[in-house]
Order: sequence, then C-alpha cells, then structure tokens
Amino acid sequence: MRMRQIGSPTNSLLKVYRRALAKGTTREGWLAVEGPFLVEEALAAAPAVRTHSVLVAESVGAKFAHLVERMPAEAEGVQVPDRLFEQVAQTQNPQGVAALVELPSHNLDTILGGHDLLLLVACGLQDPGNLGTLMRSAAAFGASALCTLPETVSPFNPKAVRSSAGAIFRLPVLAGLAVNELVHRLRAARVRIVAADRHSPSPLYDADLRGSLAVMLGREASGLPPEITREASLLLSIPIRPGMDSVNVATAAGVFLYEAARQRGFRY
Amino acid sequence: MRMRQIGSPTNSLLKVYRRALAKGTTREGWLAVEGPFLVEEALAAAPAVRTHSVLVAESVGAKFAHLVERMPAEAEGVQVPDRLFEQVAQTQNPQGVAALVELPSHNLDTILGGHDLLLLVACGLQDPGNLGTLMRSAAAFGASALCTLPETVSPFNPKAVRSSAGAIFRLPVLAGLAVNELVHRLRAARVRIVAADRHSPSPLYDADLRGSLAVMLGREASGLPPEITREASLLLSIPIRPGMDSVNVATAAGVFLYEAARQRGFRY
Repeated sequence: MRMRQIGSPTNSLLKVYRRALAKGTTREGWLAVEGPFLVEEALAAAPAVRTHSVLVAESVGAKFAHLVERMPAEAEGVQVPDRLFEQVAQTQNPQGVAALVELPSHNLDTILGGHDLLLLVACGLQDPGNLGTLMRSAAAFGASALCTLPETVSPFNPKAVRSSAGAIFRLPVLAGLAVNELVHRLRAARVRIVAADRHSPSPLYDADLRGSLAVMLGREASGLPPEITREASLLLSIPIRPGMDSVNVATAAGVFLYEAARQRGFRY
Repeated sequence: MRMRQIGSPTNSLLKVYRRALAKGTTREGWLAVEGPFLVEEALAAAPAVRTHSVLVAESVGAKFAHLVERMPAEAEGVQVPDRLFEQVAQTQNPQGVAALVELPSHNLDTILGGHDLLLLVACGLQDPGNLGTLMRSAAAFGASALCTLPETVSPFNPKAVRSSAGAIFRLPVLAGLAVNELVHRLRAARVRIVAADRHSPSPLYDADLRGSLAVMLGREASGLPPEITREASLLLSIPIRPGMDSVNVATAAGVFLYEAARQRGFRY
C-alpha cells in the first residue's frame, strides 16, 4: 500500500482531520476516530462502514501497517511526521493513528420495517460517556437502533464514540429526531412505547417486553418530559432500595435491554 | 451556628482539605467530599456517617447555611474567602462547599454475619467512574457490601465518590482485601462465589441467584484472574450479540445485581 506523505501543517486534509477529531464529524457527516482500537473496529465493520482515509504518524507506520493494509482500495493512506499528528490529535496521549469513516445512513422507514423491534430512545441525555456506554449496551443486547431526540448530546461526540467501544459502527443510530414525528411513526408501525419512569409502581420484570417496543430514557435528574410519558403504553421502573434516588442512566438502559432480551429468549 | 473564620492560606485545616480533596481521604481515613450534593448526602447518612467539618466559601455562606445547620453538634463549620476555597477545591467549577466525613468502619466479620448476602467484588477495575457507578448500582439493588481486591482503583478516589452519587455513604465498602483471605472467608461463611465470565456458556438468568453469594467482576479487557475463576461455584455470562466483545463493567455489575434482586423477589 502506497502512502501519501504530508509534511505541511496547513494541508487541507490535516485541517479536516483536526476539526473533525475535535467535533466528531466532518462537514459531510463522516466520523473521525482516533486510536488503533476504533480504527480497527471501523475497518472490521466494512463494507457497511466505509473508510475514506487512515492517517498514521511516521514513527508508528510499521506498527499500524496492518490497519492500512485492511483499508478498501479506494481509501487513502496518509503518513505525517509525529509532531503534525500530535497537532491534529485530540486525545491526551495520541497513539498515532486516526481515520475518517462514513457510517451507513439509516432512516425510520428502514428501521421500522423490521419485526420484533427493540428501539432505545435517548431523551435529553447530556453526558457523552453515558450515551456511548448506552450505545455499547444497545449493540450488545441486540437493539434494533438508537434514536436520540433534540437536546441530547450527539452520538457522534468523540467521547461518546470512545465510550461506545466500537458499537457506533454496528448499531443503527438516528440522531436528533423530532419527538412528535417519532411518536407518530412508532404508533403507525405498532411499536409500543415503554417509558422508563423511576416513580412508576410497575417493575419492568412484571411487564411483557416481547414484541416491537421503544424504550424511552430521560435524564437522571428530571426524567422524561410529559409529552413522552403521556404517549407511553407502559410506564415501568427498575425497583431500587428506598432512599436511593436512581441508578446511572447507562446502567438503567443496560437493565431494560437485558430484561427485554431475557424475555425474548435471545440465545447467542 | 457559629462559624470559624479562616483567612490564611497556610492554615493547617485548609492544607488537610486540599490534600484530602485531591486524594480522597485524610491521613485518618476520613473522606473529603466537595459540592452541595455530596455534602448533603453525607449529612443525610448521619449518624452512621459522621461529619467532622463543613467548609464554606464566603459568597455562598447564606446559600449553604442549611447544610451547616444540619451538622452534628460536635462538628465545626468553617468559612473562608472565595479565593481560598478555590485553592483548596479540586473540581473545575468549585461550588463553594466541602466536608470531611468519617465513614462507618466495616469488616468481613460483621458483613459475613448477615443472611442472604449479595456481595459485589471488584477485581482489578481501573476506572474510578466505573467503580463509582458500580457502587451506585450496588446500593440501589440492595447489595450487602462492595469488596475490592488489591490492584483495583480506590473506592475513595474523588471521581469514584462523585460517580457513586452518594452511594458511598450507604453501602458498606471493604477496600483492598487479599484474594486468598477473602475466598477462604467466603467459603467458611458458605457464600457461593459467582464469577462473571463473558466466555461462559451459562447465561446468568438460567442460574439460581438466591441465597448468599458474592459476584466477582474483573476488568473489561482481561476478565477475572484464574485464582478467582477456579474458586467459583458458578461461571456465568451476560448473553450478548456475536461480534460484540462485552458490555461496560459497571453495566455488567448492574445487570448481575438486577438479575439477583429480581430472582430474590425484592419489592420496594
């Protein structure tokens, strides 16, 4: 694999990398990922995930040659001096490899065309680490997709992507959906709306969580907004000990998904 | 309540606060906590948790007067100029209140004297945020205690304490237990050892998780060391989709505790 060499800090591709690694995505909506783990996960998710370029620091060129080798033919391998990589990188200890990748595009039509759907809807979550951990659980427990409403941290936020541990490449993600539109479409597709509500007297394990459903999760402090809870077929709580306020929202998501998967008899 | 005024940056109590807020604990083993939420949680856990002093920045003296009022009679309220509080504080946006508190002391004898124990044992976890989230789940799902083995991040690490969201004040915590001693004591007390092992073919929901047990959780990458797994009565996995490596360790802890609580018919 021939590598393109870039030595100028004003090179336009390096500018694109720097901006995208800070923000999460390029103007075209491609995802920028840093570190061998995420680059490898992106390459492993081909052809659904399309890698456009891999950027490698000179001193680790040999170490990461196997990543460059796995790029699709149309992708570009780029080598830069270490000091330029460090200027572009956004992590505290840059490991010398990054990539620009294009996630498959999903929409509600294709998602809602499936059967026995298990959707997770994040309503207002602010912490990118929690959203990433939640994506990891969603992918692990076989969720059909993650949807986020407006006012929710972006699933493409670099910290969310890192916490997802590669789940972002495997899980269909629909970001920033309008709540009214989503509720309308879920009803039309006969997907039951299950609201995680810590004040509900109904524990989730007493409910039937089989069949198509969308689990709505709000912020830890304020919970779900009323325009969601009033549309829900079920308000369910995770039973916790009196005096304790709640569990972490990513843990709550994991427990809801686990319970749904358990009831559905998922066997892997 | 009369407040002691401190105006000198070289005051010895302020030095104690500064060191303890950075490290988590004082030389006596008292916990240093920062921010109104944690200070309030500590005060709410009296008398089991004993507050020794509350430190307040001048400009928020009135705002946090209710916290100082709730201190036990023998505790000391201390007011300092805002700039001194900022020098002592370790958070990015100091909120002007901190406290030194003494957790109740626990030992294996008192813990193992109970019935239907549900212990969580953290073996080698490195991330303080994960350990804190795990403590929060342990308290919420009614675990009897959290034990940590050596080479595990301290449960008294400031970030772990913050992520615990006050659970550190309610959950018995035994840190840095020697693995051989712990295994020996668990066996003597007839507490079954359950190892979370993602390679196990036995899903946790097929196992009987009632009766006294200790759930052992290792690092996400390397799992549990063989000296733990060979002592386990049960090796159980959380079933996840092929191609996904694992879930977040705090999520895994939440799922194990939820499943055990569900089987035990905990009703709150």
